[in-house]
Amino acid sequence: MDEFGIIETFFKRRPQSSRVLLGIGDDAALMEGPAGHAYVLTTDTLVAGVHFPDGAPGFDVGYKALAVNVSDLAAMGARPLGFLLNLTLPTVDEAWLTRFRDGLSALSEGLAMDLIGGDTVRGPLSVTITAIGEVLQGEALRRDGARVGDRIYVSGFLGEAALGFLARAGRVAVPEEFLADVVARLDRPKPRIAEGQALRSIASAAIDLSDGLVADLGHILKASGVGAEIDLRRLPVSDAYDAVFSTVGYDPALGFGDDYELCFTVPPERLPAFHHILPRFGCGFHYIGDIVAGESLVLRTETGVYIPQALGFNHFRG
Amino acid sequence: MDEFGIIETFFKRRPQSSRVLLGIGDDAALMEGPAGHAYVLTTDTLVAGVHFPDGAPGFDVGYKALAVNVSDLAAMGARPLGFLLNLTLPTVDEAWLTRFRDGLSALSEGLAMDLIGGDTVRGPLSVTITAIGEVLQGEALRRDGARVGDRIYVSGFLGEAALGFLARAGRVAVPEEFLADVVARLDRPKPRIAEGQALRSIASAAIDLSDGLVADLGHILKASGVGAEIDLRRLPVSDAYDAVFSTVGYDPALGFGDDYELCFTVPPERLPAFHHILPRFGCGFHYIGDIVAGESLVLRTETGVYIPQALGFNHFRG
Repeated sequence: MDEFGIIETFFKRRPQSSRVLLGIGDDAALMEGPAGHAYVLTTDTLVAGVHFPDGAPGFDVGYKALAVNVSDLAAMGARPLGFLLNLTLPTVDEAWLTRFRDGLSALSEGLAMDLIGGDTVRGPLSVTITAIGEVLQGEALRRDGARVGDRIYVSGFLGEAALGFLARAGRVAVPEEFLADVVARLDRPKPRIAEGQALRSIASAAIDLSDGLVADLGHILKASGVGAEIDLRRLPVSDAYDAVFSTVGYDPALGFGDDYELCFTVPPERLPAFHHILPRFGCGFHYIGDIVAGESLVLRTETGVYIPQALGFNHFRG
Repeated sequence: MDEFGIIETFFKRRPQSSRVLLGIGDDAALMEGPAGHAYVLTTDTLVAGVHFPDGAPGFDVGYKALAVNVSDLAAMGARPLGFLLNLTLPTVDEAWLTRFRDGLSALSEGLAMDLIGGDTVRGPLSVTITAIGEVLQGEALRRDGARVGDRIYVSGFLGEAALGFLARAGRVAVPEEFLADVVARLDRPKPRIAEGQALRSIASAAIDLSDGLVADLGHILKASGVGAEIDLRRLPVSDAYDAVFSTVGYDPALGFGDDYELCFTVPPERLPAFHHILPRFGCGFHYIGDIVAGESLVLRTETGVYIPQALGFNHFRG
């Protein structure tokens, strides 16, 4: 049983309270907020030795713990408001805590996010953040709105975090001029907050790429009851990626995750509005395929089609 | 540096968003909610081997992880709405997960709380819950409202969880007829939700007793800028407690914590209203002392006075 099976089997229930507008199953939950708004709530845990190396710099741990949560807010089109911080520490290392705090602040201050609560306990190093954002009711981007005929887009480049991870582990040789960039993409992903907000009236469905394109697009397909065809030749990868992986295929871009780009669908009638916002975003939005009938994800290559069974990061895969 | 020092030094900032009505420093944060309400948000982490024994029954872990958070909602006078669950598991043990879920449900279903989101990851066993409640704006019980002349009360009996802990560890001999009760008080505390709600228009300040009376009342004193005199002969303890501790003093009732009773203050002019609600609550509310000028907590005994420096559970005390 994987983490999604655990949630389905043990924890997913229909919400009873009228204050809960959307429960388990999307990037974030929605609760009724003030003055026509909905609050967007999401939470992620990072564990030392699992999500980041033992001995990782405090700055990077703080930054990334917040970034992965903010990325879920971005995928809902939300404006970030604040967060709660649960910090489990083996010891009190003030120098480490200072760097951790600075990493958090590097992201939270630019977004004007308030730290509104939390808990600090002793134990194996781990960070849980619960982030809160807001959006006008009815405007949140969800996973379940993709329809046959919609185009599928991703922001930025895919596989950069995989490159950073493999380079640091000494498993691939990344050319010197790209090295700092790909490691930064792994340690300090930039949540696509402005992009998510701009897509609110345009995208029919959206998700952030935390577990890899195949797994995360799969969530959109399942929630929306549709299939997809992706043209692998359209996958946006960087020069660094091409320099390393040109001969070994696209698996890291498809299955590693940790890129925290957005994957979203655009209905044909909204393409003019979509093209209108494109110039604002330097990261680029790349058309990679289409929503089709059925429930399969089909990947087209130059030589044929591939239908993946289970790609993407999963904590409990055997 | 203790956990409160960590928060003060590294994380406490004045909130910037007008949506945040109360930030770090109380039992819970307050955010602007719909229709004149405020949302109450609180979070607590329980770590295996720290907050519960390795090998603790899944039911108890699930129950208590939610109970300690609901107790913070009770201390704010809030109506519980829902929660997010972060579960860090070393392996997927479906039997354990079933019992864990049943323990959560045993509490959440009676309170009609929705599980609205969460995260499940691999790592050393740990549970973080973020609970959400609501209260009419301006009616939340806070720590900072105690004034000189207010009476200090606690609900129920103190030191029961300490008894349960010491009995299970074989460090005290609890008479057979009390044993199941005191262990249940440790493993399955009953958050004082109804009591907290009834106290909204009566108490001037409130807190839940998670770290022990001295530490937790100390938070009220510090936030309110006042002192207190407690008469130790008035501390409400059970027959079980008296049977074990009659000769060894009141430390477990003062300093162990984990009772999740409420400690609150009542201004003299609200005593009639307070007496009016008393018959509704079987747990009893016990008058233990008074708010006085100054900033000290003075404990009166039969033989003199005692001014404690630092009692109460603290994760990082050396």
